[in-house]
Amino acid sequence: MEFSLGQVAAILEGKVEGDENLTVYRLDKIQEGKPGGISFLANEKYSPHLYETAATAVIINESFKLTKPHQTNLIRVKDAYASFTKLLEAYDQMKKNELTGTEEPCYADQTATFGSGCYRGAFSYVGKDSKIGSNVKIHPHAYIGNNVSIGDHSIIYPGAKIASDSVIGSHCHIHHGAVIGSDGFGFAPLEDGTYKTIPQIGNVILEDYVSIGANTTIDCATMGSTVIKAGTKIDNQVQIAHNVQIGENTVIASQAGISGSTSLGKNCIVAGKAGIIGHLELADKTTIGANTGVTKSVKKPGQTVFGYMGMEMKAFLKSYSLFKKLDTLEARIKELEKKP
Amino acid sequence: MEFSLGQVAAILEGKVEGDENLTVYRLDKIQEGKPGGISFLANEKYSPHLYETAATAVIINESFKLTKPHQTNLIRVKDAYASFTKLLEAYDQMKKNELTGTEEPCYADQTATFGSGCYRGAFSYVGKDSKIGSNVKIHPHAYIGNNVSIGDHSIIYPGAKIASDSVIGSHCHIHHGAVIGSDGFGFAPLEDGTYKTIPQIGNVILEDYVSIGANTTIDCATMGSTVIKAGTKIDNQVQIAHNVQIGENTVIASQAGISGSTSLGKNCIVAGKAGIIGHLELADKTTIGANTGVTKSVKKPGQTVFGYMGMEMKAFLKSYSLFKKLDTLEARIKELEKKP
Amino acid sequence: MEFSLGQVAAILEGKVEGDENLTVYRLDKIQEGKPGGISFLANEKYSPHLYETAATAVIINESFKLTKPHQTNLIRVKDAYASFTKLLEAYDQMKKNELTGTEEPCYADQTATFGSGCYRGAFSYVGKDSKIGSNVKIHPHAYIGNNVSIGDHSIIYPGAKIASDSVIGSHCHIHHGAVIGSDGFGFAPLEDGTYKTIPQIGNVILEDYVSIGANTTIDCATMGSTVIKAGTKIDNQVQIAHNVQIGENTVIASQAGISGSTSLGKNCIVAGKAGIIGHLELADKTTIGANTGVTKSVKKPGQTVFGYMGMEMKAFLKSYSLFKKLDTLEARIKELEKKP
Repeated sequence: MEFSLGQVAAILEGKVEGDENLTVYRLDKIQEGKPGGISFLANEKYSPHLYETAATAVIINESFKLTKPHQTNLIRVKDAYASFTKLLEAYDQMKKNELTGTEEPCYADQTATFGSGCYRGAFSYVGKDSKIGSNVKIHPHAYIGNNVSIGDHSIIYPGAKIASDSVIGSHCHIHHGAVIGSDGFGFAPLEDGTYKTIPQIGNVILEDYVSIGANTTIDCATMGSTVIKAGTKIDNQVQIAHNVQIGENTVIASQAGISGSTSLGKNCIVAGKAGIIGHLELADKTTIGANTGVTKSVKKPGQTVFGYMGMEMKAFLKSYSLFKKLDTLEARIKELEKKP
Repeated sequence: MEFSLGQVAAILEGKVEGDENLTVYRLDKIQEGKPGGISFLANEKYSPHLYETAATAVIINESFKLTKPHQTNLIRVKDAYASFTKLLEAYDQMKKNELTGTEEPCYADQTATFGSGCYRGAFSYVGKDSKIGSNVKIHPHAYIGNNVSIGDHSIIYPGAKIASDSVIGSHCHIHHGAVIGSDGFGFAPLEDGTYKTIPQIGNVILEDYVSIGANTTIDCATMGSTVIKAGTKIDNQVQIAHNVQIGENTVIASQAGISGSTSLGKNCIVAGKAGIIGHLELADKTTIGANTGVTKSVKKPGQTVFGYMGMEMKAFLKSYSLFKKLDTLEARIKELEKKP
Repeated sequence: MEFSLGQVAAILEGKVEGDENLTVYRLDKIQEGKPGGISFLANEKYSPHLYETAATAVIINESFKLTKPHQTNLIRVKDAYASFTKLLEAYDQMKKNELTGTEEPCYADQTATFGSGCYRGAFSYVGKDSKIGSNVKIHPHAYIGNNVSIGDHSIIYPGAKIASDSVIGSHCHIHHGAVIGSDGFGFAPLEDGTYKTIPQIGNVILEDYVSIGANTTIDCATMGSTVIKAGTKIDNQVQIAHNVQIGENTVIASQAGISGSTSLGKNCIVAGKAGIIGHLELADKTTIGANTGVTKSVKKPGQTVFGYMGMEMKAFLKSYSLFKKLDTLEARIKELEKKP
C-alpha cells in the first residue's frame, strides 16, 4: 500500500513541507531511512539524522527549528511521537485486514462455520462443528480441531495448533507453532514400575484479547478447563500445564513454566525462565523475577518474589550479595579462630 | 457418541435410580455438571453438589445415603471412583478409535505401507519406504519422513514431525509439534574461528508405550541411535540431545534438557526445567529436582539430586536455609570481631 | 545409494583387501556393524571389534597390522579417521542434493521465484514476491511468507516457519519447527491495567551459514531488524527476542534465551539454558556458562560469566564451594561464640 504525503498529513492532521504528491510505503528508523520510507523525529538526540536521512519524509513537531538544509520532506504535527504511533497502528491494522479469501488447497469439515471477512490460508485445517467468527485470519498450516470456537478478529498464525473443544475469545493472537489444548502430563504409577495414562478430557479456554507466543504450549485440563482470562499476554516458549488458571491482564515472559493446577491472579508479571510448581495460588499483582523458582503460594497482593527458590526480593538480593563474598566471610572466621 | 443411562449402568455393573432412557455424551465435574453430562461423587466433601448439580446423571457408591431431594439421576455402583475411571478410559479409547480413513489431500509415497484401521489426516505426509502399523492415527499436518517405522496403535498428533530413519514403537503418543530426529548440534571449530557442520547420520529409536510432549525435540544420534526405552513419558518442551539413552519407565517433566551422550537409567524422575550436562551416567531410580543443574554422574541407584549445581538433596536444602539468613551469619561474625 | 567397495576406495585413494564388487549403502559404528554397512577403525582401543564386526567393509590405516583372521573386507588408507570423515561428508551432501523437484500439492504465489535445483516438498508454502535461490530445499510443511529472500543452498526443514520480510542468507539450515520472524513481545500498559499491543513491523536477517535449531524462535524487530551474523549456530528451543544482534560465529546451546535489544559479539559461546536480560552488550569471545543468568553487560572480550546471577567464573565457583559447606561455617561461628 502506498500513500501520498498529502494523505498521510490528512490522517495525522499535519502539514507537508515539501512535495505532497510523493508516496511512501514503509516505516523506517530515521537513521536507517531509505527512499519510500517515512520516519519520525521526536527525541532531540536524533536531530542530526534529519539532515542526512534518505527517507522520503520525516514527521516532526510543529515547534522543531531547522538549523541546516535537508533533503527529505517534512510533515509537521503537534506531537511527532504520538503521530508516528498512530500511523504505525493504522499500518499494522491495514496489513492484517488485507488478508481475506481462501487459498487452495485448504480443509474444512462441512459442519464448520465461518463468519464474514475470514482468511483461510493454504493447508489450514478446520474440524467438525467448529465455529469461526468474523474477520478471523487462519494462516497457512494452522490446525483447528473439532468443536472449537474462535471469536471475531482473532488471528491464528502459521502452524499454530488448536486442539478439539478449545474456546478462543475475540481479538486473540495465537502465534506461529503455538499449541493450545495438548494432553496434560498425567500418568499413574503402577506397582510394576510402569505408568498408566490418565485420559485428559478437559479443554482450554482463552478469553478475549489474549496473546499466545510462538511455540508456547498450553495443556488442556484433565477435566474441566485450563483458563487464561481476558487481556493476558504470554510470550514465546512458555509452558502452561493442565488446569492452570490465569487472571486478567497478566504478562508472562519467554520460557517461563507453570505447573499443573496453579492459579495466578490478575495483573501479575512473570519474568523470563521463571518456574512455578503445581497447586499454588499467587495473588493479584504478584511479580516473579527472571529465572525464579516459586515453591510457595503468595497470599498478599503486590509482592515480588525472586531467586533460585523464590524469596521476598530484597531478602534474596541481600543474601546473594553476601554469597558473592563468602570467601571473605570465611577469612574473617579464620582470623577469629586464630585469636587465643 | 451418546449413551443411555441404562447402557452406562450395564458397562459399570451398576443400577439406575431415575430414567434409564436419558442419554449422556460428556463427562463433567460434579460442581460444573450440565445437562448431557455424567459426573461422579466419591469424596464426601463434594456431597452438597449432588443436590444441586445440573448433570443428567451422577455415579455414586451403593452405600451412599441421600439426605435431601435431588434432581439428577443416579447410577449406583460398588466403587464410584473406580467406575468413573473405567468410564473415562472407555470414553478416551472410543474417541481415539473413532478416527479412521483418509482425509484429502494427504501425501504418502507409493512405497509407504499402512496397516489396517489407520487414520490419515489432511495434509499429513509419509515418505518413501515408511512402514506404518495397524490402527496408527496420523493427524493433520503430521510429517513422517523416509524409511520410518511406526508400531501399531501409535498416535502422531497434529504437526508432529518424525525425521527419516526413525523407529517408533507401538502404543506411542507423539504430541503436537514434537520433533523426533532433528540434527544433533555438532560443529567442529576451525582455525579461522568458523565452524564446520558435522554430519548427523544416526537416528532416534522410541520403544513401545513412549509418550513425547508437545513441542519437545529429540535429536538424532551423530552415528548410531538416540534411544528412549519402553514406557518412558516425556512432557512438553523437553530437549533431548544426540546420542542420549533413556531407560524404561523414566518420567521427564516440562522444559527439562539433557545434553549429548548422557544416559539415564530406568524408573528415573526428572522434574521440570532440570538440566543435565553431556556424557554423564545416571543410575536407575535417580530423582532430579526441579530447576536442578546436574554436573556429575550419579552411580548409586535411588539418589535424589537437587540445586543449582546439583547436590544430594538434604545437603542442598541445609545450605539453602543458611543462604537465606546469611545476613545474620555476617552479623554474628561482626559481633565476634568486636570482642577484644 | 549404493557404492561398490571399489568406488569407495577410488574416492578415498585407498586399496581394497577383499571383494571390491561388494556394495555398501550405510555408515556404521564398528561395534554395531551390519551387512551393507561400512565402518572405520582409527582408535587402537576398538581393534578387537575388527575381527568380529558384521559390517561389509572397514576403513583402516595402511600401517595397521592384523593379528587375527577377519570376515570383513578392508579398505586401506593413509588416515582412516580423515577418510571416514570425508566419506561422511560426501554421503551427507549427496543425501541433501538428492532432493529435487516438486511434490504435489504445494503452494507458491505466482509472484514467487525459484532458482534451479530447488526441492519443494508437499504442503510447503511460499508467499508473494518471495525470492528463493538455487538449490534451496524447502521440505514438507515449511512456511515461507511474503517478500522473503533465501540464498542458495539453504535448507528449510519440515514445518519451519519464516515470516514475511525475513532475509535468509545462503547455506543456512532452519531446522524442524523453528520460527523466524514471529512478533516481538511488545505491550504498553494502559492506566486501566490492560495492555495495548505495540505493532512489530521489523524483520529478521540471517546471514550466510547460519544454523537454527528445531523449535527455536526468533522474533522480528519492533522496527529495523533482528540480526544473526554469518556462521552463527543456534541449537534447539532457543529464544531470541526482538532487536537482538548476534555477531559472527557465535554458538548458542539449547534452551538459552536472549531478551530484547541485547547484542552479542562474535565468537561467543552461550551454554544451555543460559538467560540474558535485555539491552545488554556482550563483548566478542564472551563465554556464558550453562544455566547462567546474565544481568550486566560484559565489556572486556574473552571473559567467562557463570552462576545464578552471572559472575566471573572463578569467583562463582569459589562462592559455590563455600555455599556447599555453609553448615560447617555456621558451626565454626557457633564454636567461636562459645568462647568466653
